[in-house]
Amino acid sequence: MATKNQVYIAVIGAGGVGKCFLSQLRSLAARKPSPKLNLCYVSSSYKVLYNEDYTEVSMEGVAESLAASSKAPPALSKVIDYLAAAPAKAILVDNTSSQDVADLYPLALSRGVSVVTPNKKAFSGSYQLWQDVFTAAATSGAKIYHESSVGAGLPVISTLKDLVETGDKVTKIEGVFSGTMSFLFNSFAPTSGQGGAWSEEVKKAKSLGYTEPDPRDDLNGLDVARKLTILARLVGLPVESPTAFPVQSLIPKELESCGSGDEFLEKLGAFDQQMEETKAKAQKVGKVVRFVGSINVAANKVKVGLEMFDPTHPIAALKGSDNIISFYTERYGSNPLIVQGAGAGGEVTAMGVTGDLLKVVAQIS
Amino acid sequence: MATKNQVYIAVIGAGGVGKCFLSQLRSLAARKPSPKLNLCYVSSSYKVLYNEDYTEVSMEGVAESLAASSKAPPALSKVIDYLAAAPAKAILVDNTSSQDVADLYPLALSRGVSVVTPNKKAFSGSYQLWQDVFTAAATSGAKIYHESSVGAGLPVISTLKDLVETGDKVTKIEGVFSGTMSFLFNSFAPTSGQGGAWSEEVKKAKSLGYTEPDPRDDLNGLDVARKLTILARLVGLPVESPTAFPVQSLIPKELESCGSGDEFLEKLGAFDQQMEETKAKAQKVGKVVRFVGSINVAANKVKVGLEMFDPTHPIAALKGSDNIISFYTERYGSNPLIVQGAGAGGEVTAMGVTGDLLKVVAQIS
Repeated sequence: MATKNQVYIAVIGAGGVGKCFLSQLRSLAARKPSPKLNLCYVSSSYKVLYNEDYTEVSMEGVAESLAASSKAPPALSKVIDYLAAAPAKAILVDNTSSQDVADLYPLALSRGVSVVTPNKKAFSGSYQLWQDVFTAAATSGAKIYHESSVGAGLPVISTLKDLVETGDKVTKIEGVFSGTMSFLFNSFAPTSGQGGAWSEEVKKAKSLGYTEPDPRDDLNGLDVARKLTILARLVGLPVESPTAFPVQSLIPKELESCGSGDEFLEKLGAFDQQMEETKAKAQKVGKVVRFVGSINVAANKVKVGLEMFDPTHPIAALKGSDNIISFYTERYGSNPLIVQGAGAGGEVTAMGVTGDLLKVVAQIS
Repeated sequence: MATKNQVYIAVIGAGGVGKCFLSQLRSLAARKPSPKLNLCYVSSSYKVLYNEDYTEVSMEGVAESLAASSKAPPALSKVIDYLAAAPAKAILVDNTSSQDVADLYPLALSRGVSVVTPNKKAFSGSYQLWQDVFTAAATSGAKIYHESSVGAGLPVISTLKDLVETGDKVTKIEGVFSGTMSFLFNSFAPTSGQGGAWSEEVKKAKSLGYTEPDPRDDLNGLDVARKLTILARLVGLPVESPTAFPVQSLIPKELESCGSGDEFLEKLGAFDQQMEETKAKAQKVGKVVRFVGSINVAANKVKVGLEMFDPTHPIAALKGSDNIISFYTERYGSNPLIVQGAGAGGEVTAMGVTGDLLKVVAQIS
């Protein structure tokens, strides 16, 4: 019975999302005494806290303790050995965006270690890894949850899974999947018809912390393509990779070779005319332009790029850096099931992870 | 191991939702061989199919077999005895809207029988019953899921539970919770400024099957009040009953005593002026009127009734008979998490029930 009433938790990654998760885990453990949530391992890129004998790592001030640690993390495969040998069921929480950690999910799952993560890499990389992950989980009974890999804490993956598993037929998924792109286009081409110069909006978004350190990592569309890959696979389309379908990049060809993000930002203004024309073309027909991803299931077509919308369309009417995801299905008919809200940020991303953790705990303890 | 890999399912209610659920269950059982889903009991108001020795009831043509049955259902408490003694874990699926069935959930749960249901009665009636239900579940470990009791298959209850359980602080919930009211106001006071006479819209909604057989059952606001009661309790407000807070009825006082729904509909036209004035008052300030429910958590205030919205507000821009539910929380800041889509209809309501069933099966098998 002792092993039934507790769960061991290992957390890799203590950055923005990781810190929020650790804080949510601490208050969760305090509110929820059974099963007991034992934090047994925490690591950042260069530091680690854990005890060979599985004695708990104190959740109080854990970020500070980790920063003060002088121990370097062991090899990832050793971490999985450690968790597989724990005195009760174990859950690996991967709060990194690392491909190396993602590559080890099949091993972890096959050894009975469940995984929860916001990391997109295992689900949007090679189709082989996707298959290995879910085969390992199905065979061992360990669980794998990744709600925050699309739309952060918004109920996107769980809703899509419910639709599919209860036998609905999803015909189309369409939406704004990037908080950065949402913010940029809501400012650049608001439904009210105003809006600033494109390069100025990109600079503003960067200064507000809405872009990656190098804004090209948002503007190349790959982040959205990764999310689309995940959703397409969940509906059953065997999409090979996030580059296996058309993805429109908003980086002018001439600036692809810039040495740095700063150089890129400096030179971007010279290309504002291109985006201005796109905006004007939409305005001429009473529409606004937005950066969207869509999956047409019947036609097996996935694409990411600019589209025009009527100002009253929910995708056009979005606010701030919100995401919106519309599920068109047989049961829901012509009016889709829509989920909308903040799709990025440490606290809401961590919330998706914590929610997943609770679902896994309910099943394995 | 035999008992680990199967689950017994009893279904009470074979009306609109019940029939859709039985059809979804059949295709689910075909797709999902483990754990084996054994249908062991199905009943409508006057008929039943089951075998004392728990031999399976065939899912093929089950609605027809039930209609052809000559057996009357046993007392509800006997059904619970039967399920509690099943050779594996059992789940009671209540597809009725019966208070009598709801009153027996605590007994079922305390005897280890899990319950999934779209029936609002156990969650929106007396606060004592609500407490008895969740205490019984917590004590025995049996599960109780009721996604479809608010917004049908839309992820409303699961989203709210995730927010609360992961430690977010919900400050306000606001939305259109009735497909009937949604349809009526989207036609009566569309954002485009047109719209028909109120009594004509009510008649149209009835003829399209969007209202209850007696439309007063929609117009009295009680259905929305029940849903608000459920959500308020999930956020921790000990709302005593759906009549413990202000609920605006759209039935003119003079027509409350009408002997029948038909008489009511005949006489309603004489009161169109009241609704016309409400619409005009909103139009004068550039707004439209909608029938909404809201929960202000900090102020402990729940209310249901007419409110005015800017035409660009998501609540005003709703289409058809869609529901919309906005969750304002600490983590989501000023832009709420929004769920939107069809909140009524047999297939989507049954989908919520089937989704719940899957969640329970994952935990008890």
